[in-house]
Amino acid sequence: MSNLKITEVALRDGSHAISHQFTVEQVTSITSALNEARVPYIEVTHGDGLGGSSLQYGLSRTDELKLIEAAVGVADFSKISVLLLPGIGTIEDLKVAENLGAKMVRVATHVTEADVSKQHIETAKELGMETVGFLMMSHMAPVEKLVEQAKLMESYGADVVYVTDSAGALLPHEVKERIKALKQELSVEIGFHAHNNLSLAMGNTLAAIEEGATRIDGSVRCLGAGAGNTQTEVLVAVLEKMGIDTGIDLYKMMDLAENIVAPILPQPQEITKNSLTLGFAGVYSSFQVHANRAAKKFNIDSRDILVELGKREVVGGQEDMIIDVAAELAKAKSLV
Amino acid sequence: MSNLKITEVALRDGSHAISHQFTVEQVTSITSALNEARVPYIEVTHGDGLGGSSLQYGLSRTDELKLIEAAVGVADFSKISVLLLPGIGTIEDLKVAENLGAKMVRVATHVTEADVSKQHIETAKELGMETVGFLMMSHMAPVEKLVEQAKLMESYGADVVYVTDSAGALLPHEVKERIKALKQELSVEIGFHAHNNLSLAMGNTLAAIEEGATRIDGSVRCLGAGAGNTQTEVLVAVLEKMGIDTGIDLYKMMDLAENIVAPILPQPQEITKNSLTLGFAGVYSSFQVHANRAAKKFNIDSRDILVELGKREVVGGQEDMIIDVAAELAKAKSLV
Repeated sequence: MSNLKITEVALRDGSHAISHQFTVEQVTSITSALNEARVPYIEVTHGDGLGGSSLQYGLSRTDELKLIEAAVGVADFSKISVLLLPGIGTIEDLKVAENLGAKMVRVATHVTEADVSKQHIETAKELGMETVGFLMMSHMAPVEKLVEQAKLMESYGADVVYVTDSAGALLPHEVKERIKALKQELSVEIGFHAHNNLSLAMGNTLAAIEEGATRIDGSVRCLGAGAGNTQTEVLVAVLEKMGIDTGIDLYKMMDLAENIVAPILPQPQEITKNSLTLGFAGVYSSFQVHANRAAKKFNIDSRDILVELGKREVVGGQEDMIIDVAAELAKAKSLV
Repeated sequence: MSNLKITEVALRDGSHAISHQFTVEQVTSITSALNEARVPYIEVTHGDGLGGSSLQYGLSRTDELKLIEAAVGVADFSKISVLLLPGIGTIEDLKVAENLGAKMVRVATHVTEADVSKQHIETAKELGMETVGFLMMSHMAPVEKLVEQAKLMESYGADVVYVTDSAGALLPHEVKERIKALKQELSVEIGFHAHNNLSLAMGNTLAAIEEGATRIDGSVRCLGAGAGNTQTEVLVAVLEKMGIDTGIDLYKMMDLAENIVAPILPQPQEITKNSLTLGFAGVYSSFQVHANRAAKKFNIDSRDILVELGKREVVGGQEDMIIDVAAELAKAKSLV
């Protein structure tokens, strides 16, 4: 077996795709099948991590602690992982999840804000958990900045640091230069988390593996935010063709994708105008609804707003800027 | 503008995805929108090329000549292309299509059978058409064989030769070595046609462009056989991010994908158990129904049959071998 380890994120990133409506029965049957297929890690949390269930981020149908407990209960091979975004989830939430049996945590911050992960990573290590630093929106930082932030996470004790392409905005050569730099500068394992908004989740994942990434995220049947992630059962097939053994049973993965996961998708994942726009502009999905509203108000194309927000590197929390940008674009248009 | 030219194949490869049910109205509205978006080439033919409408390959709802005529009628910028598989379509069919206004033909053969394209390529050149040699199932030939066959097509007068990954079975490094060898050994333009069965249509397309391919196929909203092709509107966005101008209007492509093409898909394109199996095994989609039947008869997994057929490089016309392979596998299984 190779040293490549896959983390299945359909029960966390996929939470976005089904508006956080997972039931205990769904999580139990999917986890059980993934465990049977010998997937090493399965992440189970609200799409925005521990404590994400809220009016702002979307209310979960089922308390995520019940979902984590259900997953732990049927996974005698797979380790259950949780996601934690400092500021949304707390150290207390992490302790509860660990107590329920979660063995890994991924502490996620914006790519330029690794410093807020210090306490959470340290606590996770004290709890004896496998601890991953997860640098979101990695396309928004130049390589040197990414390396600097990844080193911070390493210094706090992270066992793995991930390049997380939250908006599905990276191109293969950009993935390569990022993974390559991290492999050179860090001594911990490097991971890669893709989104398929530009139809490059698989191509980027292979680029990451080529440069030495050994931890890879996938979502079965593309059940993830935006256009979904690297499709896990397809990744297992591709790696098998390349002679890279993941330890995962390909046929079982294909069967569970078709028979257990596909039926719960509200509709098949595809690359739509919206998801393509997010990848093209490289912005947060939460901006879309605001941009649509502003576009209507100023009678301009919402895509122009999103592209401009991407250029200005606007981040979550700066939603107020959307209306300013729209007003500017409308003014510029009227002057043409 | 770059020298990269895109051919839109939704109205030909996509014919498979909708069981050859295109209407004159659909072809007219899609072609008109693609023309408006300034797509250089639009292919309109039965999925299996001129003359493909038959019990064996699937009966077209509308005579393809009517569809070609309709497309020509609304395309004052885009050139209309037709596909021709010698043996299915005839030189007479080609003359009729040219007379209706088709400006390009792609003469398609199995990757090892370029010699059957001689007359068709020569006739197309005499008719003054832009002529493309289209080497299907390119993953089934080693690089040297592919080069030899491509050279034949070049010697017959082809203006372009395509590497056609009919089963969506190629990996990026395999695409690279193929395009690289053809660029070194031929002086005509090199093209690449992808399928998305392994979620690599876009990754492979970028690999082809990196090695010098200048003719690329795409299908809007992935409307093509199997898991579809490189999604055209996404490709235009990716190339724009890379600074490669295709001359195509991105927003218009996105809008027509969403508003005109998506509504006619019977269901969104995704990578299913079936399409993944074809890409993994590297076999013709027509084998699937036979393999399923044989699997039931011998109580084995149809995927094992397809993978074995791929290993043995079984090609279209050799469907009789499917039952033999199934019997052998069942016997081997009973001996374990």
